[in-house]
Amino acid sequence: MSELRQDPFTDRWVIIAENRVDRPQEFMPRPAQRAALTCPFCRGNEAETPEEVARYGAPGAAPADWQVRVVPNKFPAVRPAAEIEKAAFQTAGPLYPTGTSGLGRRQPASGVHEVIVESPDHVARFSELSDLQIELSFAAYRDRLFALQREPQLTYALVFKNTGVDAGASLEHVHSQLIALPQTPPEVQYELTKAGEHLALHGNPLMADVLAAEVADGRRILIATDAFTVYCPAASRLPFETWIVPRRPAPRFELEAPEMIVEAAHLVRDVVVRFEERLTRPAHNFWIHSAPIGDESGRIHWRIELAPRLATMAGFEFGSGCFINPIAPEVAAKHLQ
Amino acid sequence: MSELRQDPFTDRWVIIAENRVDRPQEFMPRPAQRAALTCPFCRGNEAETPEEVARYGAPGAAPADWQVRVVPNKFPAVRPAAEIEKAAFQTAGPLYPTGTSGLGRRQPASGVHEVIVESPDHVARFSELSDLQIELSFAAYRDRLFALQREPQLTYALVFKNTGVDAGASLEHVHSQLIALPQTPPEVQYELTKAGEHLALHGNPLMADVLAAEVADGRRILIATDAFTVYCPAASRLPFETWIVPRRPAPRFELEAPEMIVEAAHLVRDVVVRFEERLTRPAHNFWIHSAPIGDESGRIHWRIELAPRLATMAGFEFGSGCFINPIAPEVAAKHLQ
Repeated sequence: MSELRQDPFTDRWVIIAENRVDRPQEFMPRPAQRAALTCPFCRGNEAETPEEVARYGAPGAAPADWQVRVVPNKFPAVRPAAEIEKAAFQTAGPLYPTGTSGLGRRQPASGVHEVIVESPDHVARFSELSDLQIELSFAAYRDRLFALQREPQLTYALVFKNTGVDAGASLEHVHSQLIALPQTPPEVQYELTKAGEHLALHGNPLMADVLAAEVADGRRILIATDAFTVYCPAASRLPFETWIVPRRPAPRFELEAPEMIVEAAHLVRDVVVRFEERLTRPAHNFWIHSAPIGDESGRIHWRIELAPRLATMAGFEFGSGCFINPIAPEVAAKHLQ
Repeated sequence: MSELRQDPFTDRWVIIAENRVDRPQEFMPRPAQRAALTCPFCRGNEAETPEEVARYGAPGAAPADWQVRVVPNKFPAVRPAAEIEKAAFQTAGPLYPTGTSGLGRRQPASGVHEVIVESPDHVARFSELSDLQIELSFAAYRDRLFALQREPQLTYALVFKNTGVDAGASLEHVHSQLIALPQTPPEVQYELTKAGEHLALHGNPLMADVLAAEVADGRRILIATDAFTVYCPAASRLPFETWIVPRRPAPRFELEAPEMIVEAAHLVRDVVVRFEERLTRPAHNFWIHSAPIGDESGRIHWRIELAPRLATMAGFEFGSGCFINPIAPEVAAKHLQ
C-alpha cells in the first residue's frame, strides 16, 4: 500500500509508492561516455587548477607525493567577497528595481567554493580510495569547515559529493566540493526553528528523539557501532537514501573528535560500496548536514546523508515540493543490510 | 558576476552562476533507447489502460475516433480513499510507533492519479500535436480539475507533464498527469501564507506585483498578448525556466474562461517549440501552478511553469535546498525571444 509520510526535520512530504517500481520503463538510458579532456585533478596537472588551499599526504611523505588536495573551484558558483568589486555590492537589494517591497532580493553571490581532490590517480569513485585517502579527505573537510569559522561574513557551509553524470558531476576524477554562503538557506532556517521548538517542548534534540525511534523500530537500521547508527530514514525522499548519524548528537561535524571523523569516513565508504554492489553501480551523492557555522544551539545536529540516483525529479516534485519514492525505506534497508 | 537571488513566492534562493556554463563537461550522455514495449496509449490498445474516465474527440466524431483520453494511472502513486481498506486508515498517525510527539506523520496515500493521453498516435512531444489535440488536452485538464471539486476529501491538485527520460517520463507516448491529494503540500502552504501577508500589506496580489515589476523591467519578457505575459522569472531556479501568466491574476486554472484555456494551450506549445528549436530538443516538464482546490482567497494565482531539463539536481541542491542556475534569466530570455 502506498503511504504518505512527513519528514520530522523539514515537514516535507514523501509518497512511498512501491507499486510504481513495477511500471514499464520504456526508456533504456545508455551510459555516458567520457570525453578526452586533460584531467585537471590528476597528479602532474596541478597547474590546471587555481592555486591550492591545502595539501595532504602520508606522514613524512614529500610534498610532491600528495594524496588529497583542496583547490578553489575554477568555475565557482560563489566567490570570496574580497574578489568582488565593491560597486557590485551596491546592486544588492530588491530583486526588481521597481515595485512594492517583499518581491525577493538580489546580491552578489559571495562565499567560498572549493574542490577537494581525493586521489592523485584518475579513479572515479570513493569506493576505490585507500584508507589513507578517505581519512585525509574527511580531515580536509573538517579542516576547511573549521577554517571558515574565521570568516565573519560566512554563516553556512555544505560539503557534498557528486559521483557520476546522473548525480550532477561534470568531471570524473574523484572529488568533493565545499560551498559556504553569507546566509543560511531558508530550508535550513526552517529546520532550525522546528528543531528549536522540539527542544523547548521535549528537552531533547529532535535528532536524538528520531534516532531513538528508528532504533526502537529497528527495521531500517543498516549498521550500529558504538559511535554511529546507519539507517534508511522512515520518510526518505529518495530511494535507498541512507543516513550516518552519531549516536550522541553533536551540532557540527568539524568539532567532532578525530576518531569520529575517521569512523565516519569508513562508514561512508561502506555505504557507497553497498550501493555499488547491491544496486546497479549507480551515480550517487552524499553531503554533510551540519549546523550553520558557529551555531552550537543544539537544534541541528550533524549527520551524513547519502543517496544513489535512481529516480529523476519530475514535474510533480518541481510543482508540489513533494517527492514520490518508489522503494519503501524498510525494503531499501533489507537490500542494503 | 554571479548573483544570489531570492524568489518572491517561495523565499527559495538561487545562485545565478553564469561562469559555470563554461566549465568542462567530461561526460557526454548518450540518448536513451526506446524498448520494444506495446504502447498502452496508442489507439487500438485501449484495453491496456484501466477503464477510462473521459474521452474527447472532434465535434461530431464517432466515439472510437478519440483524440484525447483520460485514464486512471495503472501504477498510481495515490489511490482513491474508497479503494483503500478501512483498516489501513487506522495506521494513520505518528511516523514512528514510539517516541515523543512531533516526529513526523504517516497515512495511507489516498488521492487521485490520472493520465491524460494527448494523441491516439505514437508521438512523443506536445509540439507534434494538432491544434485540436492541444485544445482538447487543456480542456481535459480543466474538466478533471473541475470535477475534483466534488470530492470533499481532496484539497490540492497538480497537472504536470514529463517529456523525455531526463524529465522523469517512463513512457514515450505524449501524455500528462494529474495528482490530487488530501493535504496541501507544505511548500504551497508556505506560499499561501507569504502571499496572504503581501496581499494584506499592499492590497495587491503578489502575482500582480511581480508581473508588473517583470513588465517594467522588460528584459525577460518573451511574449505579451492581451491576456498573457510569458517571461523567464528573475529568480528562476532552472535554466530557461519560463512562466505563462494571465495578465489579470486569477486563483484557479479550471475556473478560467474557455478562450483563456485555449490561448494557454497554444502558448505552452509555442514555448515548447522554442525549447526544441533553440536548445538541443531537451527533455522538459511543465506544470500548472494553481490555488488549492476550492481556494479563492486571492493569495495564489494560476500560472503555467515550464522548464527544459538541462541541469541535474546535485548534492548542493539536495543538501541546502538552494539551486545553482548557470544561465541568467536575462540571457535565457534573449535566446528564447
